[in-house]
Amino acid sequence: MNVYQLLDLTGTFVFAVSGVRVAAEKKMDIFGAIVIGFATAIGGGTIRDVVLGSTPVDWLQNQLYLYVIIGAVVFGILFDRFVLKLQKALFIFDSIGLGVFTIYGLEKAMNFGLDEGFAVLLGITSATAGGVIRDMLANEVPVILRKEIYATACLVGALVFLLFKYLGMSFEINSAITISIILIIRTIAVIYNISFPEIKKK
Amino acid sequence: MNVYQLLDLTGTFVFAVSGVRVAAEKKMDIFGAIVIGFATAIGGGTIRDVVLGSTPVDWLQNQLYLYVIIGAVVFGILFDRFVLKLQKALFIFDSIGLGVFTIYGLEKAMNFGLDEGFAVLLGITSATAGGVIRDMLANEVPVILRKEIYATACLVGALVFLLFKYLGMSFEINSAITISIILIIRTIAVIYNISFPEIKKK
Amino acid sequence: MNVYQLLDLTGTFVFAVSGVRVAAEKKMDIFGAIVIGFATAIGGGTIRDVVLGSTPVDWLQNQLYLYVIIGAVVFGILFDRFVLKLQKALFIFDSIGLGVFTIYGLEKAMNFGLDEGFAVLLGITSATAGGVIRDMLANEVPVILRKEIYATACLVGALVFLLFKYLGMSFEINSAITISIILIIRTIAVIYNISFPEIKKK
Repeated sequence: MNVYQLLDLTGTFVFAVSGVRVAAEKKMDIFGAIVIGFATAIGGGTIRDVVLGSTPVDWLQNQLYLYVIIGAVVFGILFDRFVLKLQKALFIFDSIGLGVFTIYGLEKAMNFGLDEGFAVLLGITSATAGGVIRDMLANEVPVILRKEIYATACLVGALVFLLFKYLGMSFEINSAITISIILIIRTIAVIYNISFPEIKKK
Repeated sequence: MNVYQLLDLTGTFVFAVSGVRVAAEKKMDIFGAIVIGFATAIGGGTIRDVVLGSTPVDWLQNQLYLYVIIGAVVFGILFDRFVLKLQKALFIFDSIGLGVFTIYGLEKAMNFGLDEGFAVLLGITSATAGGVIRDMLANEVPVILRKEIYATACLVGALVFLLFKYLGMSFEINSAITISIILIIRTIAVIYNISFPEIKKK
Repeated sequence: MNVYQLLDLTGTFVFAVSGVRVAAEKKMDIFGAIVIGFATAIGGGTIRDVVLGSTPVDWLQNQLYLYVIIGAVVFGILFDRFVLKLQKALFIFDSIGLGVFTIYGLEKAMNFGLDEGFAVLLGITSATAGGVIRDMLANEVPVILRKEIYATACLVGALVFLLFKYLGMSFEINSAITISIILIIRTIAVIYNISFPEIKKK
């Protein structure tokens, strides 16, 4: 297993844990937590693969993902109190997950011959659609549609990655920079409480 | 038409009727009932086929499903009062539908070369995702995420089916046992009012 | 670019603008408006292509759609007040969009060898599923499930198109008639405030 795959599994784990948090807030049972954990972790990649026609979708091809997600759900349920104390660590891993998923989605779309605009779009989709599905299952307006800087961070990251890719930077360094940028944007947004203005309704 | 296909169509019919019940509770019009009936009946199989890459998806290949679903919606609307009295019969057919869909999803996934863990997962998805979509369309937190023993019955059924399959039991007997187990688990759960505990929020 | 493609892009534009309206009502930020605008514009076609197995899905193959949708979102946000005054013009373009999407979905499904019943179904799905996804993202019961004559107009249009197609009418004239019928049905429904009765709950 390389560093990249390890990050991908880490992102999957953290996304699944975020699903369990939402399930707990909604007073779901264990099964609900498993479903939401799963949907959060694999939702974005599934939509990416399905619209590309890359089937069976990625996560069906490596049983490791199944175990990581189930492990994350069990972890999230057993150590619920602990998870709440881990907010800062989870925030960092979550941002890393966003970066890894964005880069992977972008690269995969380009390997399928898509134009750059769509590759960026599918990169962002890979990273964010799982959270959208999580919130829809919980019967909430998806949080990224309301006040998160979440997807914007992915957009900036994707554009930077694309730029450096064309400038010939190595994949490893480019990835490290992209993930760092996403982490920094989200950190700044949280510290200074920045969010986009609502659309005015006149 | 063999017994298996007959059961499959029965499950499709009952699932569609359950969609009409939800549409009526939400005061939707006839068209809404058709959409929700359809989505409930074909949702699970569609997701299974799409993530596997088995397209055009199954139900697009046999016009019989179209007629059965439209028939179920018309039946559900015209005999609404009758349907309410039929609760016990519907419960039994619904459980049979769950069993048939679980087995079919599991077998199809294995024919696509997936590992057992994913085959079990896709079996359960085939059986339950239609109901999840039904509840999302009705703007409710999906009932199986809250307090149903629904998916757990499918999980136990799928594991039993897989075990007996490896022990060399014939498909027909194995299917009958699996469907019976799912029916029995759900019946016991209803009689003794069993459900999983909510995840505690500390 | 031919007339047909121009209409298709017009429909895409209008659908995206309708997404922005919903985003504004829900006090979403700009990013939310982009997501909802996108989902509304490409949702129906995506579901059609995915269940058919026509991948990468259509809109990933022409960057023009990306620009039209982004343009529609920017337009919708900047000229929000103007859009409200344009209700009648938007209604007409929206109906044209419905017609174009219905015809295109129907034709595509038949080219994939589907039976007529399913072709009609996929035509309607192409035209209406984007709006369903838009409302689900906004955490509302989809408006077409409640009181719109929306999908029924598409159904009538699709059946008329199919009839004239078998009678040997040219595609261009048939399309013009179909789109006109959809526009007329919706106009009459709005003027006389016609909608289907709710299903009675006894």
